[in-house]
Amino acid sequence: MSGVSFLPLGGLGYIGLNGLLIEVGEYAYLVDCGIEFPEENEPGVDTVLPDLEFIRRLEGKLRGIILTHGHEDHIGGVSHVFRSMKVPVYGPRLAIALLEERLEEYGIGGKGELRVVEKGTTLSLEGISVEFIRVTHSIPDCFALAIRTPEGTVVHTGDWKWDEEPVDGEFLQWERLEELGREGVTLLFGDSTNAEVEGRTRSEREVGRALERQIEEHEGRVIVAMFSSNLHRLHLLADIAQRTGRHLVLQGRGLRRFDRVSRRVGLNRIDPGVFASEDHMQALPPSRTLVCCTGTQGEPLSALYRASKGTHPRLQIQEGDLVLHSARKIPGNEGRVYDMFAGLTRLGAKVVHHRNAGIHASGHATRAELRKLLETLQPTIFVPVHGELSFLSSHADLASQAGVGSVRVFENGERFTLENGNLRKEGAESLQRLYFDGKNIGASATLGVRERWKMAFSGVVALQVEREGLRASVYAQFAGIPQTSERLVTALQDWVRQELALLPSYTPPAEYEAAAKMICRRFIFQHTGKKPTVLLRVSGGGQ
Amino acid sequence: MSGVSFLPLGGLGYIGLNGLLIEVGEYAYLVDCGIEFPEENEPGVDTVLPDLEFIRRLEGKLRGIILTHGHEDHIGGVSHVFRSMKVPVYGPRLAIALLEERLEEYGIGGKGELRVVEKGTTLSLEGISVEFIRVTHSIPDCFALAIRTPEGTVVHTGDWKWDEEPVDGEFLQWERLEELGREGVTLLFGDSTNAEVEGRTRSEREVGRALERQIEEHEGRVIVAMFSSNLHRLHLLADIAQRTGRHLVLQGRGLRRFDRVSRRVGLNRIDPGVFASEDHMQALPPSRTLVCCTGTQGEPLSALYRASKGTHPRLQIQEGDLVLHSARKIPGNEGRVYDMFAGLTRLGAKVVHHRNAGIHASGHATRAELRKLLETLQPTIFVPVHGELSFLSSHADLASQAGVGSVRVFENGERFTLENGNLRKEGAESLQRLYFDGKNIGASATLGVRERWKMAFSGVVALQVEREGLRASVYAQFAGIPQTSERLVTALQDWVRQELALLPSYTPPAEYEAAAKMICRRFIFQHTGKKPTVLLRVSGGGQ
Repeated sequence: MSGVSFLPLGGLGYIGLNGLLIEVGEYAYLVDCGIEFPEENEPGVDTVLPDLEFIRRLEGKLRGIILTHGHEDHIGGVSHVFRSMKVPVYGPRLAIALLEERLEEYGIGGKGELRVVEKGTTLSLEGISVEFIRVTHSIPDCFALAIRTPEGTVVHTGDWKWDEEPVDGEFLQWERLEELGREGVTLLFGDSTNAEVEGRTRSEREVGRALERQIEEHEGRVIVAMFSSNLHRLHLLADIAQRTGRHLVLQGRGLRRFDRVSRRVGLNRIDPGVFASEDHMQALPPSRTLVCCTGTQGEPLSALYRASKGTHPRLQIQEGDLVLHSARKIPGNEGRVYDMFAGLTRLGAKVVHHRNAGIHASGHATRAELRKLLETLQPTIFVPVHGELSFLSSHADLASQAGVGSVRVFENGERFTLENGNLRKEGAESLQRLYFDGKNIGASATLGVRERWKMAFSGVVALQVEREGLRASVYAQFAGIPQTSERLVTALQDWVRQELALLPSYTPPAEYEAAAKMICRRFIFQHTGKKPTVLLRVSGGGQ
Repeated sequence: MSGVSFLPLGGLGYIGLNGLLIEVGEYAYLVDCGIEFPEENEPGVDTVLPDLEFIRRLEGKLRGIILTHGHEDHIGGVSHVFRSMKVPVYGPRLAIALLEERLEEYGIGGKGELRVVEKGTTLSLEGISVEFIRVTHSIPDCFALAIRTPEGTVVHTGDWKWDEEPVDGEFLQWERLEELGREGVTLLFGDSTNAEVEGRTRSEREVGRALERQIEEHEGRVIVAMFSSNLHRLHLLADIAQRTGRHLVLQGRGLRRFDRVSRRVGLNRIDPGVFASEDHMQALPPSRTLVCCTGTQGEPLSALYRASKGTHPRLQIQEGDLVLHSARKIPGNEGRVYDMFAGLTRLGAKVVHHRNAGIHASGHATRAELRKLLETLQPTIFVPVHGELSFLSSHADLASQAGVGSVRVFENGERFTLENGNLRKEGAESLQRLYFDGKNIGASATLGVRERWKMAFSGVVALQVEREGLRASVYAQFAGIPQTSERLVTALQDWVRQELALLPSYTPPAEYEAAAKMICRRFIFQHTGKKPTVLLRVSGGGQ
């Protein structure tokens, strides 16, 4: 195979599961390897994983996983890959540290394969070299990648926004991007998350000022709910705590984990004296308390959600509390989030959220920034990544408007090859969608995901038929079936018995079973409108 | 009981199920009686109904249901009330016509109880009088109510926005509201849907101009997805069709129903010559076709969703189609909507949605409009209605800022009494949440809603135990249980049999069953992390 091939493992058509396979001759690399959170119709699983079997088949060829930053939708799959194979991982300090922790937690070896890369470094790998360029985002320590291949320079933005006043002083390296543009970029992969949002993103410091106004004006206790990984915001809140004479209390495993890991790798410069321990939280006067907690999406086990239900052992909401929801509501979670707000309000808190106070900022570039990047890099070819198909289309249109000559929208699993300045589609891999439920990994059929989703709508009948020649005794049990009358179970049993008695006595077992199921399903459908899952057991036999 | 009492049956703490009970002495009235769409954790039901049993108990006392407008979340419950009792219904022409159709569809009598009220009319009822004041909204023919009670004037806004250039020429009657303000309003109930949205709402005509730009610039076929009830928009699209030389084709039962009903009551002035029948759609040149269709929320049976999957018998998406999604994405539906967009894109359509083109407008007043209303009416007391608790709180804050002296936030089921210019809480009714699944009506336990939701996460085991003294034969079947090994069912059977054999032979049946369930649940939990629903049958008996 000549040319350089690309195959997105995920990230196109939804938010999450980012991963881009790059193949150069006999070598392969993966840019990011993330997870996704399950959709509405995938109940009872914790995360969605990339096609680990596909990755497994790359063993020997796959020479490295290159991470752009430490968010789960970019690194969450690596620990699962490591269950069956080890491969060198290159990435920023924070992402690598988070991955180390995860491998320890899962009891998986292979820490030796993890390599920290510093800003501005160029790694020479087999077949390619990779330059790591600083970009700003909602987690510290993020890189865009400039990948030198035999077919020219390929730039991958990772996740980025243009924050002109970064909290950690780590500026986006525009000058370097401008140089790359002058040198010539053959292919650009660009973050499309906010490709349908006009204008510029708010800077993290603007969020800080909005938070400070709220906190300053409030006399009682303040509770800020935020995404654990946004260490910029935690720094801002620590500064605000100091200026307003408050102590910072962290509630929630995720926040404490990020505080700990970022401190270990030198990215956390918060004065330890600002913190108060959660044991002392209730002893602190409300006016001197600033609680940071997890649970922005109303996750049932999170600190804020439990507080809203009055079931958190320490974080007890009291009259005069101000809750600042410093996050967006991820689509699909609104119901739970508003339910949580209602609980907090009932317990006496005042809830202020992003929608009415500007106390959150997206981590992703909006159209004005995206356009500037396209104009700066002037790639020959542009491929939008990271987002719903609709966002990718909008980003593609923007690139065309910005003068990019060749703009292509791909989907997950499609393989396309860059050769002589052209990108051609080579076909597609059929990728598996795998699930992880905290204990098991498997596809929908193995973990029963689709079956559960079906039962959520139609319920279950357990049906036992004891076949004795022409006669049958029938026993039925319902779960999730509308009980339209008290005697529906008895009526079903009678009906199935009568109908089965009409079958010829020589009906073979398989036909007899199929008939029993159909009779049951029809009866339930007639009486309830449901087409239930029928768990049938026939014992005994024909004449 | 002295004073005038109020009890919201729904609409507070979520969007939908609007209904406000008003009690004056021995008489009671209901302002609106709507349905809600089920939440994520209420699978397999079509709609949520108000507490019909509570309403049923008002028989004799309830002298009327007063409708503000024809949206389902305001009128959808009335036909269900009519199943068991008839009560006079007063409302605008369109709402009454929609209700008539629904009663016919369900085969429920009582059409004689429906009375059309014209704009500006004042109805004298027992104990109160009700004046119907024109407001603008996303469906034609909407009213706010000025209710004269022994305790003063109570205004209920219904759903409203301030559209200064209404498509149907029916202006909001600000002058009348100003007069009411001068006369004195004791209590105001106000629509809070957009109480957290700054500024003014877009007018419907602005949406029309944005749609026209898109349609004019496109040479191929245009498909507009919209809410069926927005007849203003249908009028605008008919005008655009005429100006751009296109024929209008309606796809979807909902749209045809609204077109038909609004024509019957004289609110539809679209030239019939603009329409082409769906049978002729495929014969029309794309450049002369403008399709209006249902399916804005990706409903699986809707026209647009089926078109996106290539399964619609007539609406076949082709290269060059432009799909304009002229609606908002209701929170919770985003995943399905983007999935639908992706399907349309794959089939060759270009999809433009509100987010990137301003082709939709909310029907609800935003903060600037809400403030103007508060300042115009200057009520003594303000109670926000219609929205998440968070929206109600924001609306309450706005009212305080606007100088309203007494602002109260209530929840569904709370009874509060207006007397001598004061509003006091009297206690609360515990209201049932009822479901309608197209065939049955009942609470969660009756319809199995909660049980189904649980199974969506944890699956089901059907377990049969034949007890023969100390021994038992055990048979198990799984649905939705992770199959962590091929022999998990056999292993469970063996385990249950062995564990049951350890029980004393004299174990009473109830204890034996409880033990069998527990043994099964523990085994499954250990192997899969799930705590399934166990449908157990024990046959045979002890020694």
